[in-house]
Order: sequence, then C-alpha cells, then structure tokens
Amino acid sequence: MKGFAMLKINEVGWIEKEKPKCGPKDAIVRPLAVSPCTSDVHTVYEGAIGERTNLILGHEAVGQVEEVGSLVKDFKPGDKVIIPAITPDWDAVESQMGFSQHSGGMLCGWKFSNSKDGVFAEFFNVNDADGNMALLPDNVSVEEAVMLSDMVPTGFHGADNAKVAFGETVVVIGIGPVGLMAVAGSNLKGAGRIYAVGSRPICQEAARKYGATDVINYKEGDIVQQIQEANNKKPVDKVIIAGGELETFEQALKLIRPGGIISNINYLGSGDYIKISRLDWGVGMGHIKIIGGLMPGGRKNMEYLSNLLKWKKLDVSILLTHRYKGFEYIEKGLALMKDKPKDLIKPVITI
Amino acid sequence: MKGFAMLKINEVGWIEKEKPKCGPKDAIVRPLAVSPCTSDVHTVYEGAIGERTNLILGHEAVGQVEEVGSLVKDFKPGDKVIIPAITPDWDAVESQMGFSQHSGGMLCGWKFSNSKDGVFAEFFNVNDADGNMALLPDNVSVEEAVMLSDMVPTGFHGADNAKVAFGETVVVIGIGPVGLMAVAGSNLKGAGRIYAVGSRPICQEAARKYGATDVINYKEGDIVQQIQEANNKKPVDKVIIAGGELETFEQALKLIRPGGIISNINYLGSGDYIKISRLDWGVGMGHIKIIGGLMPGGRKNMEYLSNLLKWKKLDVSILLTHRYKGFEYIEKGLALMKDKPKDLIKPVITI
Amino acid sequence: MKGFAMLKINEVGWIEKEKPKCGPKDAIVRPLAVSPCTSDVHTVYEGAIGERTNLILGHEAVGQVEEVGSLVKDFKPGDKVIIPAITPDWDAVESQMGFSQHSGGMLCGWKFSNSKDGVFAEFFNVNDADGNMALLPDNVSVEEAVMLSDMVPTGFHGADNAKVAFGETVVVIGIGPVGLMAVAGSNLKGAGRIYAVGSRPICQEAARKYGATDVINYKEGDIVQQIQEANNKKPVDKVIIAGGELETFEQALKLIRPGGIISNINYLGSGDYIKISRLDWGVGMGHIKIIGGLMPGGRKNMEYLSNLLKWKKLDVSILLTHRYKGFEYIEKGLALMKDKPKDLIKPVITI
Amino acid sequence: MKGFAMLKINEVGWIEKEKPKCGPKDAIVRPLAVSPCTSDVHTVYEGAIGERTNLILGHEAVGQVEEVGSLVKDFKPGDKVIIPAITPDWDAVESQMGFSQHSGGMLCGWKFSNSKDGVFAEFFNVNDADGNMALLPDNVSVEEAVMLSDMVPTGFHGADNAKVAFGETVVVIGIGPVGLMAVAGSNLKGAGRIYAVGSRPICQEAARKYGATDVINYKEGDIVQQIQEANNKKPVDKVIIAGGELETFEQALKLIRPGGIISNINYLGSGDYIKISRLDWGVGMGHIKIIGGLMPGGRKNMEYLSNLLKWKKLDVSILLTHRYKGFEYIEKGLALMKDKPKDLIKPVITI
Repeated sequence: MKGFAMLKINEVGWIEKEKPKCGPKDAIVRPLAVSPCTSDVHTVYEGAIGERTNLILGHEAVGQVEEVGSLVKDFKPGDKVIIPAITPDWDAVESQMGFSQHSGGMLCGWKFSNSKDGVFAEFFNVNDADGNMALLPDNVSVEEAVMLSDMVPTGFHGADNAKVAFGETVVVIGIGPVGLMAVAGSNLKGAGRIYAVGSRPICQEAARKYGATDVINYKEGDIVQQIQEANNKKPVDKVIIAGGELETFEQALKLIRPGGIISNINYLGSGDYIKISRLDWGVGMGHIKIIGGLMPGGRKNMEYLSNLLKWKKLDVSILLTHRYKGFEYIEKGLALMKDKPKDLIKPVITI
Repeated sequence: MKGFAMLKINEVGWIEKEKPKCGPKDAIVRPLAVSPCTSDVHTVYEGAIGERTNLILGHEAVGQVEEVGSLVKDFKPGDKVIIPAITPDWDAVESQMGFSQHSGGMLCGWKFSNSKDGVFAEFFNVNDADGNMALLPDNVSVEEAVMLSDMVPTGFHGADNAKVAFGETVVVIGIGPVGLMAVAGSNLKGAGRIYAVGSRPICQEAARKYGATDVINYKEGDIVQQIQEANNKKPVDKVIIAGGELETFEQALKLIRPGGIISNINYLGSGDYIKISRLDWGVGMGHIKIIGGLMPGGRKNMEYLSNLLKWKKLDVSILLTHRYKGFEYIEKGLALMKDKPKDLIKPVITI
Repeated sequence: MKGFAMLKINEVGWIEKEKPKCGPKDAIVRPLAVSPCTSDVHTVYEGAIGERTNLILGHEAVGQVEEVGSLVKDFKPGDKVIIPAITPDWDAVESQMGFSQHSGGMLCGWKFSNSKDGVFAEFFNVNDADGNMALLPDNVSVEEAVMLSDMVPTGFHGADNAKVAFGETVVVIGIGPVGLMAVAGSNLKGAGRIYAVGSRPICQEAARKYGATDVINYKEGDIVQQIQEANNKKPVDKVIIAGGELETFEQALKLIRPGGIISNINYLGSGDYIKISRLDWGVGMGHIKIIGGLMPGGRKNMEYLSNLLKWKKLDVSILLTHRYKGFEYIEKGLALMKDKPKDLIKPVITI
Repeated sequence: MKGFAMLKINEVGWIEKEKPKCGPKDAIVRPLAVSPCTSDVHTVYEGAIGERTNLILGHEAVGQVEEVGSLVKDFKPGDKVIIPAITPDWDAVESQMGFSQHSGGMLCGWKFSNSKDGVFAEFFNVNDADGNMALLPDNVSVEEAVMLSDMVPTGFHGADNAKVAFGETVVVIGIGPVGLMAVAGSNLKGAGRIYAVGSRPICQEAARKYGATDVINYKEGDIVQQIQEANNKKPVDKVIIAGGELETFEQALKLIRPGGIISNINYLGSGDYIKISRLDWGVGMGHIKIIGGLMPGGRKNMEYLSNLLKWKKLDVSILLTHRYKGFEYIEKGLALMKDKPKDLIKPVITI
C-alpha cells in the first residue's frame, strides 16, 4: 500500500509498505479524512522525536473499518470511526492510574507516527480498537470529526488541567488550532474574561468567535504588560500555554494569582530548562501549580467530545480553512502546516 | 422604615420597623432592585421554615451602600453592590471547611428572611460586608445583577455539584428560574446533550435558549420512559433536581449510569423520606453519588459570577419576564411568584 | 478438574468441570491460598445474585500462573500472583471513566463466582491478566496476600470514598473483616477519632488494634445515642457503612455533619428502599453526600495495596483467625463464614 | 511589656514595647509555650523577608487568653489555646477560594513576626480570634501542642498537596522538623515506601520512627542515584521537598513518574530560578505537577490536627529534643535553631 512518510529527518515522500497486520485486539482502518499537524512538522523538520526512517506520518484521522481482530467486540467492518491521536494500552498500570497517555512509559500512549506507522496511508492499524475508536455520529461530517483526533482533545485538556471554573479570567498563550481549542474549551467551562495571545489576524478573529474577550498581540509589546494593564493590575486565575518558547512560562508566572494554575499543552521542542522565578513563584509557597500534559486519547474521550459536535455545542468548522479532496493532497497539507500562510488555521483532506 | 413582611404564616403586609443598626463588620444597604423568590412563597404560605412574626421578606437584592461599620475595608457609602441570598460567617469552622452555607450550623449561612430581616425594606443590614458583597460591574444593569443573588448561584451550584464535564448528558428536572440556570450552568460547563424537564411553554423556550437540546414534558407521559427512549436506552451521566417532589429522586435513579451524580438544588419542603431504590442504586455498590446543597454565598462567588454577565457569557434577561418600577410593586411581585401566571419566569422590581 | 460450587440456591458441593481455556489475554492460575467470603454465603444461601447452577464459588485467591495467553506480556508460568475479586475489562468506556467496576454494565467488573467460575478450583481463568494480576512481593505470605483480593480493597475503598482526612472523626458501622479494613483504612488516611460499631468481642479487639478509639456495641443501646453522647453532641465527619441493614443509612444521617459523606461498602442484599430523612438531609440542602461502591479491582490496586503489606504498614494477620491447609478445607471455610463462630474473623486455606 | 525581637538584620535582643491593643475581633494571649523556628533564623540572619526593625519574633505558640474583642464569640479570658503560625483574614476573597494563606495578597496570611509582632513576648495579639485559635485539648501538653502551630501543619500540607495515596512511594527531601512531619504525614496518608533524605543521625532515627522505610544520606552520594537503585530503577510517585536548594527540584524531577507530584514546603530563601528540565518534564507533556505552598492556618486546621495528638495518632514528642522552662530561654532556643547542634531537632520553651 501507499503511504506518505518521513524518509528521514528533513525529508518526506510517498512510499510503498505492506498493509498492516490485524492483531486480535486491533482494527485495520481506511482513512476517510486526515489532517496534518504541527507535530508532523516538528517530527520531520526539527527531528523532535529523533531520527525515523520511512515512518508513515499522520495521527489525525476519521476512517472506515476494514477488518477487526478476533477479540474486538464493539466494531465491525464498514463502521465509520473517529481515531484519536493517542491510542493507549488500557490495561497498563499507568492507564489504571488515570494517565493512559503514559501507558508503558512517559508519552508511550502516543503511537501513530511515533512508535508505529501513522494514518497517512491507504490503511492503518488501530491498537486496542474497542478501547480506542468511537463511532462517528450521523450528523457530523468527516472533515469536522477529524478535529476530534487531536485539536479538540489537546486544547480542551489544557482547559481541564487548568480547572477553569465559572467566571474565571484565563490567558491562552498561542492561538494556532490547539490554542483556539483551549480558548473554546475555557469558554465552554464557564470562563469569564479570556485573553487570547497571538498575532495572526485569522487566528485572532477565530479566537473571538470561540469566546476570547480580549486579543493580545505579542508583536505590539510585552504581553505581561499588556495583560496586566487590561486587567487593572489584577492577576489572572489561569494561564494555558499553547505556544511560545520555554520563556513563556516566565511570563505566565508574572500574570497568575496565588493558587492559580499554569497548564501547558505545548510540545516543548527545544531548549534545556524552563525557568521558574523564585520570587514570582512566591518563594515556593504561593500555591501556583505548574502542569503540562499530553491529551488523553481513547474511546471515551472521543465519544464524549463528539457529543459536542453532534449537539452543536462546538463549531470546529472555523478551524478548517483549507479543504482538499484526494489522498495526494496530504503532501500539500503538510507543506501548508510547515509554511503557515496567512489564511491558514488547519487543512483537512478527505479521501 | 417601611418593609414588606411575613406577618405570620399565610399573611403578608407592609410594616414599620426601625432602620437596622450597623455593626463594626456590617453594611447598611438601600435596595436598587429586588426580586421575590419561590422560597419567600414557601416561607409564607407553606410555613416551610416555621412560624415567623413580622419578618421582613426577600433575599435577592442589588443596592447602594448607605453606611459601613468600622472594620469594613473594601466598601464605602455610595458603592453599588450585589448581595447574595446567603451571607455566611466567614471565620466559622464550617466556612474554613468549604461549607460556608452551614457556618454556625446546618443552613445557618442563610440569614435574610430567615434568621434576620430580609431585603424588602428601605434599608437592610449585610453581615460581614467585606466577605459578602461585591461591586456591581459598570456594564451590568441592576435588574440583571439581582439574578446573581440566588437564581444564578443556585442553578450553577447544581451543575458544579454534578461535576458536569465535556460532552456529558445531563437531565435537569424542573425549569423554573433556578432550573433554567442549572441548564445554563450545565451548558456553560460543556455538557453535550441536555434534557430539560418542564411543562410551561415559556420555560421550555427559555430552556432551549440556555442550551437544552431536548425538552421533556412530564404532562405527556412518564419522564423516565420519555428520556430513556430519546436516549436510546442509555443511562445519562448526571441528573440535576431543581423541582418536583421527593419521588423525583426515584426517577433520577432510574436514569443515571454507574458513577453518575444526582445533584439536588430543590428545597424539599414536605414529606418524610427520599426513597433510594436498593436495586437501582446497584445494591449499594453502583457509585451513584447523591448530593444536595444550598448555594454558596459570599463575595468571591458574586464577583466571579458577575464576570459572566460583564463579559456577556450569560444572558439572564431571558428570565426577567416581569419588570416593575417602585418599592410598592414588591407585593405584586410576590403575588406573581405565588400564582405563577403562564407568561412568568421571574419578576424584578427596581426602586 | 475439581471445584467447590454452588449447585443451586442453598446447596453447595464438589463438582468436576473441564479445566478453563486460556484466551489470548487470559491467564490460567492454580490457587495457593483462598478465602471464603460472606458474599459467597449471600450468593448461595440468600440467592443474592439470583439462581446459579454448578457455579464454582470463591473470588479471593493468591495463586501460581500455569499458562498465559499470547497477548500477555508481563506474566509467565510459575509467577506467584495476587488476583483481585474484581477483574474489569480495562478497555471498556466505564473503565476509562474511572469506574472499571462497572465495565460492561453495573457491577459487571465482578466476574468470579458471579458471571464466571470462581477460584475454589484446581485452576481458574483470569481475564485480562496483564491488567488484573499483580506479582506477590517476596516478603508477603500467601495467607496474608489473599486478604488483598477483597477485604483490604473493599474496606479501603470505603475510606477513600469517604475522603477521610487528617484528624476527622469517622464512624465505621459493621466490623467484620471488611469493616475492620475500613477502620484500618480510615486510620491510615489520618482519621483522628474512629468509632467502630460492632458486638463481637474478637472484632472489637481487632478494631482497636486497627485504630478505633471507641467501640460501640449496638446491643447495648441505640448507636446514634451512644455516639452522640460520646462525641459531646457534635456531628461526625464521615460514616462508613460496612454492615447492618437498609435502616443503617437513617442512623448514619443522624450522626453526620453538613458537608459530611456517608460511604457504603455493604452489599445490600434485601429490602426495597433506603430511606433518607428529608429533615436530617437538610431539606436537600445540607451537602451530605451519599455514595456506595464496589471495590476497584485490577493490577494497579493490587500492586499499591500490596506495598502496604510489603513495607509493614498494615498487618492483616489479625484478620486470619482460622488457617487450614488443604484444598478440601474450602468447604469448612465456607461453613465457618456462614456460621460465624465467636472466635472467627476470617478463615484462609492454603493449598 | 518585654519581647524578644529582631532589632535589625543580623541582630536580636530583648526590647520593651506597649502591650498590644485588642480590636473587636482580636484576642490578646499570654504565651504558655513557644518554639523558635528556622524561619526566625532566616528572617534575622539572612534577611529573608527584608529589613525589620524591633519586630518581635516567633510564630509558634500555645497560650492563655487574656482579653477578647467585643465580636469574639467562642473564646473567653482564661481559655488555653493553640495559635497557628498563619492567621488569615477569613472574609478575604482568597480565603473564600481556598487559599487563606494568601488572604490580602501573596503570603499575607503570614502575619506573626512578619507584618506584625510575633509571639515571643509577654502578650501577643491574635487577629480574627474566632477564626484563628483552637482550644487546647485536655490531654495534650502545651509543649506538644506548640508543634501544631507550624511543624505539623507545614509537613502535613506537603503530604496533602502531594495527594499521597495508599501504597505510594514517596520521597521526602530534608528531614528537619518540618520534613519529619512530612514523613509522618505521608505515612498517615497511607504511603507504602518512604525515602527520607537527610544526614543527621538524630533526624534519620526520627524519620524511621515516623514511618520512613529507607533513609538516604546525601553525603554518601547522589541522592537520585541512591534512590533509583534502591527503587529498582522505577520512578517514585511523589516527592516532597522540605529542604535543600533550588537544585533540589532538578533531582526531584529525575525521580518522579509521569502523573507524579512534586510538592514543595521549603521556604526558598535565595537564588533566582528553579530549573525544570524540559526532557525530564516530558517535553511539557508528562503530567508532572509542581506545586509549593505555605501551610494553611486557621482554627479548623488546628482543631483537626490537634485531634491527632488527642487521640494518640501522632507523637510529636520525638521532635522535642530540647525543653526549657522560662521566658528568658527564648534567646537560647533561637540560638540553637541557628547553630543546629548534633542532638537538636526542635527546642520548646514553656513559660
């Protein structure tokens, strides 16, 4: 079968591979819609997860079941399914602890385009199909549903980890598609004022649609100063980091109140240390929590998050600025994510 | 001064009382807007809290500070403030435990029109002013802000206690103004499908505006059957009880999943026992939590909830079906809450 | 192979059955130590889970792995393992929600001696072996470890659900082996005063060893009165119900403070309704949580709880009043649990 | 009246001051037992909180009420009371949020020997007496009770913030009196294995008594290596930092599992930045929480923690290596805390 792969660091291309095998708990799925992710760009062009050879890329997909293993009870060939980017081993001790993302070790729940071939192929294998796939609701399009693989759960995980509560003031730093979903997630958890930090007009506009009350452009001055001024020198309740650099944490710490939470969902690709200012952190006594986490995958999350689309509580179509039809457009989609043209939020390719 | 009072059970009227005294931590406030509550009706016409003589009624008010005690630091005469129905003693052990509603004993955080004169008067006393008042935001009207005294925090407390999470299916039983705010609160916490149970068309319509995806009319058949059918026989995640009778708990239990939560915000005015079916409760092993709680009062809650109005995240104007101007209309307002005409959700009186 | 079975309601006996098959995720285990449980008595002599024919009994066992399925990664023949009474399907949506006990439906995580043959046999099948077994620590005896299958996790689950915190006053009603573990679990979570309610001297003495500060004998008067008096009329923080009848909930409610938790771990075998007094429950507004739950099974729990034995934080030997050697003593063990002689807490049979 | 004061940085001495005034919510208390704290040493000899002139030192005291303000309801002259080091304003918004330590601003709940005169005086003022004092239980000595002011609640707060749960493996770095209480607190929350890191034999011995299963001496090699080896290369669940330097966080991060918590209770007196290794923190995705917090003060905490002494669940006498009688010994006590002789854990002075 054909797949679009990382040939090595800095090089991508179409390759031929054998169709994946279906283990007893697995499903083989044919993609109906996929979306390239900034992580794919990091993987290929920054070598973020190290060297990989002929690894099929992609971890955001909606597809149709082709085959299921003998132990799979709840799915059958023909089912249209949503597949999360993170597909944990559900019987692992880490999963039983509530950290399925790290089943088998730190970040090991992330398998597609990391420890196994991804979804940019004619077929792909889903491990633990009963635990990791969800039926596509009738009234949700495949293009929209593919946002459930990574963008929605990652952004919403940022809001969940920040424990956003009614009326709180939240800062979301970085408003690419994940940050936008952190804005939407904070809004859907009842935040009051939401500061969205980003510079691209199309993202700023989307942020407002998703509930941001204020947009802060880091190109127009120090974001700490801008937010403090807008907020009448009062600290904010929560900061969600969905972009930026390691230095972003220092800014977050200057903004937040005692008892606040800094919630990171940004893959930190380079640099050695995050620096936590001793004084801003209340000499170690300020109850400011710092947490960062990979999105939870799995079936339950896909089912519950897809309810938000099914019942029109969340409109992900705002994200879908570039829509293509045809397997071959995957290459173009990835190039877009790399080049980030002015009018791009997220491309989607239906097949 | 003049006040509208419960003279005794089943009898209300205008009375003259001395203007309240201002203790060192207190404020004396002149109402700008008030709203009668179903609780006032229960108090007077059902004797729900026992006999009271010449007790000034009312616990929902926005007002202007007339006088503050010597220990009050954060408010001064002239300030426009929101006053919650529940005004706890913040230094009580119960408050330090997180249950300020019960500071000094079960439900003792509820003082207005219960253990002291209420807000239907020319002036009223707010105990622990620094801890229990919040400044009215500039862009929020007094009519809307008065919904923050009881309707919003009670409804939202129901959603908070139910720990409503992204994509969950929630049933709200009872859609008077409190139930409607439970719908809005569930929606604002990211619920997916929301069943709103009620029969009055004006409330049904409001429920849809607040995020209900389905309206269930108990006059058209058993609500358990109706919801189970609509929900494809799947149990729901959460049930918020904002109306009905003691029997409502039995219905809730038939609807809910293992691990679900039944969250009561309905003042249970009569009857001896709630009955929990042994089998529906999973022979005591089903992890179905049953919880009921009085709204939290206090300044922090008023400040954070008022953010939702200030930043246009919640539109309470839908509730305000009847608006009057003039102190004397309090009587009419209470009569409306008693008689519940077809077009009523909630009356508000500005002064 | 031979097994000790429920032949039908009210009848037990030895039967011959085929050795269980080993599916790809399963293990076949040979018991090294087993213990009969009051639940076995309920199952047989009260028909608590309905009619069963030739169902092998028993759900508390430590054993040696005989065979593992092709997908099992972490165990191999010869390993000595602890097997929990509850063996969930870990990829089920309910497990992903944190309620593995109800994977596949209410209580469906309970399989041994319920929906499949139990452990009182020459061999038994463990579903999802990687997810449901734990290695026996070197320094823990099989007799003691078998208490980890059900007694420890059930009692400790009661304390966990009650969220027992430093210095709290806890009442544990019922001090059979599960209730004793609820006392120990409360003590290990930092409770201050612990009232243990029970009448049998051997259990009373054990309760004191496990941390009870007061023993209340229900045969010597109303327990509500006795506890209120001892507690200077102050309500208690938490009540754990590990015995008694449906009426026990009414007593618990009379003892507890606003904001308290009633945590049930007692299998409620008969009766129609638990009755919650409207007034004692604070007219629905008292923030008294009522929760009941089946113990969590699975590997993680077995590993972590066995740490307490390994590191000498918990001494379960106090429970083991009757020790037998020989497969054939299973029958006697069950008879003991049925007859409850004066000197019995729990029998264990090594094989 | 006489008091032992910080005259300026690096200088202490006895001074005369006016007896403090009693505001309406205050109490004036005469100390019965006090204990100097390492924080006093930091304050004086490192200038940790900046310059102070003639500030009476001390924040750990048990005393007898001399006078109460007109609004104080629950205490009267003659009462023997425990006073916490942290005495929040309970009606502040921060307190209503659950962060009373920061009532009025970051760390502003800490008043004694910081923003007002401390307890090393003939009399001292307790703000919000009803909210901040607790009656001394009959069977607890004043020497032992004074450990409730700071040592017990600080150490236990570390264990609470780490959410120590049954059977977990916990590392406590630093085993001065606060670290020892973190060991005891972890043990009382049901930890399994507890590594206590410290070098002084008297503290090591005390750590074992408080539940440490392993003692690690940082003078005998890198603590990360020592613990990893002892723990079979498996990461630990929680790390509580009760001593060390900013670099200690880097070590903690090397030890902890995905989903683990690093809980700081060490006052970080110098240095600019805590450094969080990007890779050890799972490239921002490892769900490792970092939290640090000042102990919660207030009456409720004093009441509940004193229950542990009253009911013999915690023996603080192990801490009390040096006992003196006489007001004048305060000077010597502070000198001991500065010089840390070999046989010292904590001195206590009764008056």
